[in-house]
Parts: sequence; C-alpha cells; structure tokens
Amino acid sequence: MADEDRRYTPVHVSARDIPPPSTISPIAQQFLSDGAALPRMTWPSPDDKEAWRKQIAAADEMWDQMAPPILAKVAATIETTRIAGVLCHDCLPKAGAASDGRVYLFIHGGAFVIGAGAFAKVLGARYAAAFGMRVVSVDYRMPPDHPFPAPLEDCVAVYKALLETIDSSRIVIGGGSAGGNLAAAATLMIRDQGLPMPAGTVLLTPEVDLTESGDSFRTNEDLDVILKHGLPECNALYADGHDLRDPYLSPLFGDFSKGFPPTFIQTGTRDLFLSNSVLMHRKLRSAGIEAELHVWEALPHGAFGRGEAPEHEEITTEVGRFMKKVLG
Amino acid sequence: MADEDRRYTPVHVSARDIPPPSTISPIAQQFLSDGAALPRMTWPSPDDKEAWRKQIAAADEMWDQMAPPILAKVAATIETTRIAGVLCHDCLPKAGAASDGRVYLFIHGGAFVIGAGAFAKVLGARYAAAFGMRVVSVDYRMPPDHPFPAPLEDCVAVYKALLETIDSSRIVIGGGSAGGNLAAAATLMIRDQGLPMPAGTVLLTPEVDLTESGDSFRTNEDLDVILKHGLPECNALYADGHDLRDPYLSPLFGDFSKGFPPTFIQTGTRDLFLSNSVLMHRKLRSAGIEAELHVWEALPHGAFGRGEAPEHEEITTEVGRFMKKVLG
Repeated sequence: MADEDRRYTPVHVSARDIPPPSTISPIAQQFLSDGAALPRMTWPSPDDKEAWRKQIAAADEMWDQMAPPILAKVAATIETTRIAGVLCHDCLPKAGAASDGRVYLFIHGGAFVIGAGAFAKVLGARYAAAFGMRVVSVDYRMPPDHPFPAPLEDCVAVYKALLETIDSSRIVIGGGSAGGNLAAAATLMIRDQGLPMPAGTVLLTPEVDLTESGDSFRTNEDLDVILKHGLPECNALYADGHDLRDPYLSPLFGDFSKGFPPTFIQTGTRDLFLSNSVLMHRKLRSAGIEAELHVWEALPHGAFGRGEAPEHEEITTEVGRFMKKVLG
Repeated sequence: MADEDRRYTPVHVSARDIPPPSTISPIAQQFLSDGAALPRMTWPSPDDKEAWRKQIAAADEMWDQMAPPILAKVAATIETTRIAGVLCHDCLPKAGAASDGRVYLFIHGGAFVIGAGAFAKVLGARYAAAFGMRVVSVDYRMPPDHPFPAPLEDCVAVYKALLETIDSSRIVIGGGSAGGNLAAAATLMIRDQGLPMPAGTVLLTPEVDLTESGDSFRTNEDLDVILKHGLPECNALYADGHDLRDPYLSPLFGDFSKGFPPTFIQTGTRDLFLSNSVLMHRKLRSAGIEAELHVWEALPHGAFGRGEAPEHEEITTEVGRFMKKVLG
C-alpha cells in the first residue's frame, strides 16, 4: 500500500457475481460468459528470457494457425516488406489496385511481447478492407531481445520513411493496447524531433501508463475477462531498467501543451485500461488538443472476441469516420 | 435473476478494499474517502406518501440551510418567478444587467423527489455565473403529489413559453441526474410535438434508464460513494404505474433517428450511471446525432462534493465550450 493510501478510507466492495448485461449483443454476452471461467494470464519473471521466448513462441504459433482462414475472408492484399529496415505488412484493400495516398500507420498490441507476424498481418488487412485505404502494419522488434527504445524507434523510422513520399497530412498513426502506447509515444517523439505531425492519432484501449496508476487497474480487476490484472512483468521487460514515468514509456505523462494531433480514443466500461483512456482524453483536452472519447458498454480490454460482435462494426465505423475527418 | 442471466456464467469478483486513486485531486481523494464510510441511502416504499413527504422536507431543509452562504459568494442574480405557470429561478450573471439572448434551460436533479427550491436556485446561479449567460432553472412539480408526466410537462411548458420571445437556436436544455432524464425526455417531447428543437442538450450523469438495465448498476454498486445502489423506489414513485420503458420515462429507449440536437454527455468511471451515459452516447452516435462523451477518472455520481474539487472546473469549462459551440 502506497503512503498516500494510508491517509484515506478505501471503499469496501463485497464479493459479487456479475452476469453479462442485457445491454450488449448476444455474441458479446456469450464472450463475457466464456471469459468468466478463464484463469488469470501469467508471465515469466523479467529475468528469465528463455521462458519469455517459449511463451511468445507459443502465442505466435497459435496466431499462425488462426490467421489463414481469417485472412482468406478479408478483402485485402498484404505485401510483407521492409521500410527503413523495419519489417512491415503493407496492406491494400482488394478493391483498389493502388493506394489513394492516405496511409494508416498501424501498430499492433500484445503487451510489447506478442502479436508479431500473423496477428500484425490480420489486423493490417482487416483495417485496409474496413477503411478502404492503405495500412502499413509495423512488425516492430520486441523484447526480450529488443526492449525499449527499439520498438518505439522502429515505429518512428517507418513514419520518417513514409514522409519521403507522403505528406504528413495524409498519415494517421494508431494502435491498440501496447500499440496504442507506441502510437502515442511515437507521436511525441515525432513532435520532439521537429518532424511534421501526422493528421491524427488513433488510440484503441491504449496502454499509455506503464506505472498502472489509474483507478480501473483496481476497479476492473477480474471484471475484465481479457486482461484480468495488470502487466507489471511485461512492462518491466519492455522498459529494460528505464523509468516507467518517461513519457516515451508512459505517454500519459507527456506535455501535450507543446502540441499533439487530433486524437480518437476508444475503450470499454469493463476495460482494465478504462482509466488510461479517460485520463489521456482529459489530459489532451486540458491542453487544448482536439480529442474524442468513445466508450463501449461492458467491453473488456481489446474486444468481444475476434470481431464477430456487432459492437466491433460500430467501433470500426467510428474510427473510419475519424479517418475521413482528419484525412479529408 | 432474469431468465437471460441463467444461460451465462457471471464474472466472480472478490471482495476488495479500493482506495482513492492517486490520479485525482487531493480534494477528490478526500471526498471518496469520506464517502466510503457513509451508509447506503434508503427510501420509503412508493405507497407511503407521508414518509416521502417527511424525507423530502428533511432534504429541502438541509439545502435551505446550506444555500445562503453559497449564494452569497456566487456572482449572479436570481429572480424567482413563474413561467407558463411553472416555478422558475431566472438567473443572470451579475456582470450583465440584461440577458444577451442566450438561455440555458436547466433542470435540477434529485431522484425526481428532492432538489426543489434552494438546490435549484444554487445550481441556476452557479451556472449563470460560470457560463456568463441567463439560466432558467426549472423548479418543476414532483412526486408524491405530482408524478409523471407533471414534471416533464412543466419543463416543456417553460421551453414553449421561452420560444415566444427567444429563437430555439439560442436555447440549450440540460440537467443532471434526474434532471438529465427530464432534459432528454423534454427534448424528445419537443421534437414529437413538432416544436423547433433547442440548439443543444447537456446531459450530466443522466438517469436516462429507469429500468436500470446498464452494467454499471452492478459493477459500480457501492463503489459509487454518492449513489451506492439503484433508485427503484424513486423511479416507481415518479412513474406512477406507467411503463418504465416509455421513452418519456427512460429516454435511452427513444428513437433518435427522428432527430435530436447536438448533445454533451458527462459521467465518471465510478458513476452508478456510467452505463446510462455510455449507452446514450452510442445510441445518439448510431443514429447519426452529434454527441460528445466526457468521462472523469474515479468520479462518482454527481460530483466530488460541493464544487471545490478542481475536476469540477474542468467539467464547467467543457460544458461552457459546448455552449459556445452550439449557441455561437
């Protein structure tokens, strides 16, 4: 218990069984029901790199198996390539043979350790199809072999390379979870380096505070069936000894009065990262930055499953509208 | 337990003690700490009208005592008058001798039973001072003597009377809690009667669903130190036998595809009515209505105390900006 907690009376909340609410789709209700029985996810200790490699390989293999049938149904093409030396999945909607000039620089999530390869491809392809535009999904290097600042530097390097042929006003940077962290941190680094700012930033249930100071890290513990508790092991592995309060590690602590692009923030009421989103929204607004907040009922971290719930179409519609607003 | 709940596995949340988070102001932390020890509020049974009258009189008396020192510090004038026969507190910022033509038609909260008189005056005067504009605070009739639809009809009658001299584009309708219910329901009634729509609607932690179907009625139970549990007794007293799902009683169930003005919605992550706000925002957005959502970290229903916390200045700033946006 931190010193400051001792001065205050905590709220006592009794043990309770909370069913899925009737206010979400049946698919979403079923997803919350299925997730209720799952155990908490566990991670290796930050020092045991071999254990990390094994756990990451298992997650990657699962996605390698899941991806092909998903990709077979998505109307998009994927070219896996290197941009500024960084592995990227360059995706185009099948309908259009060439890009119309707009780019969504997308950064996948996965607690800074998983989500490489197949997962990054699936999300890139899906967004290309959904938004009808080019999506460059960055397959950035990750711990245990490439901790901070390598992943962040990869994202910024890809942005810089895109700037050689594309005006910054035609680029949106975004990502989910750890990818939301990297999207916000990359935008701060782009600004700090004096580069032209992107047209907008999309932060989906973003992990913008690696110190996990927000209220929802306690209030939504276990209630979030995806992320049942915090990720201190992953955060320590990624930070590699750097101060977690560094704005490049926890962009929530950035100084936004120096400028930031229009920002779209999405979360759910059961999201362990609800406070991350709400605090980020307030911080941007207080600095006079254009920022919209969208919160979905009973949504845990990430999503209600793999995209089948009608709630996800709503999220995609809102992000697509934001893209149009900032990209013209 | 409703039928539909039986099919699903609930999430089990263990008993826990949750301290105020470090992410809110010290005043807000102290308020959550003080509220933690308070007992749940209780209400009479809907049939026992004499018990309601006593409880309401006690609450009114408390506000009668608290109001004078608060009002002495607020830079606003209050004229208590009747508009269309309805008791109103017509407030102007002291700075301006006359109204500039813009009006905030404000509807106080208080679970449809309390908040008449002094409370309605205090809020009207505060908003007049904060927004620098005329505020008509409606002191609508209430149960047990005047249940639905009398309170709603009072609000619409005042709006109609204002229309005789003021263009609808110069009027915003808003309210908090039960007042947010009445503000949304009045706007639906105004639309359904073919009257010109107001320029905007402000819904502060609104009680837009008297069936209490939202997830936060369970997830934030007891965590919200102001509204520790639902208000079925008050809702039944107000509804007076009418179906709670009627959009004039629960505006969340309205059909917004028929039109609704630009809307500002405010809530907090610990608000028992968090789901009300989130669902209302989504419902409006899905119908193509311009709607903004603002959620404050760890904020319970209503407020962190009586307006001293810096978070309230932020809320007032956001509402003031919205007023300017929609009123020009």
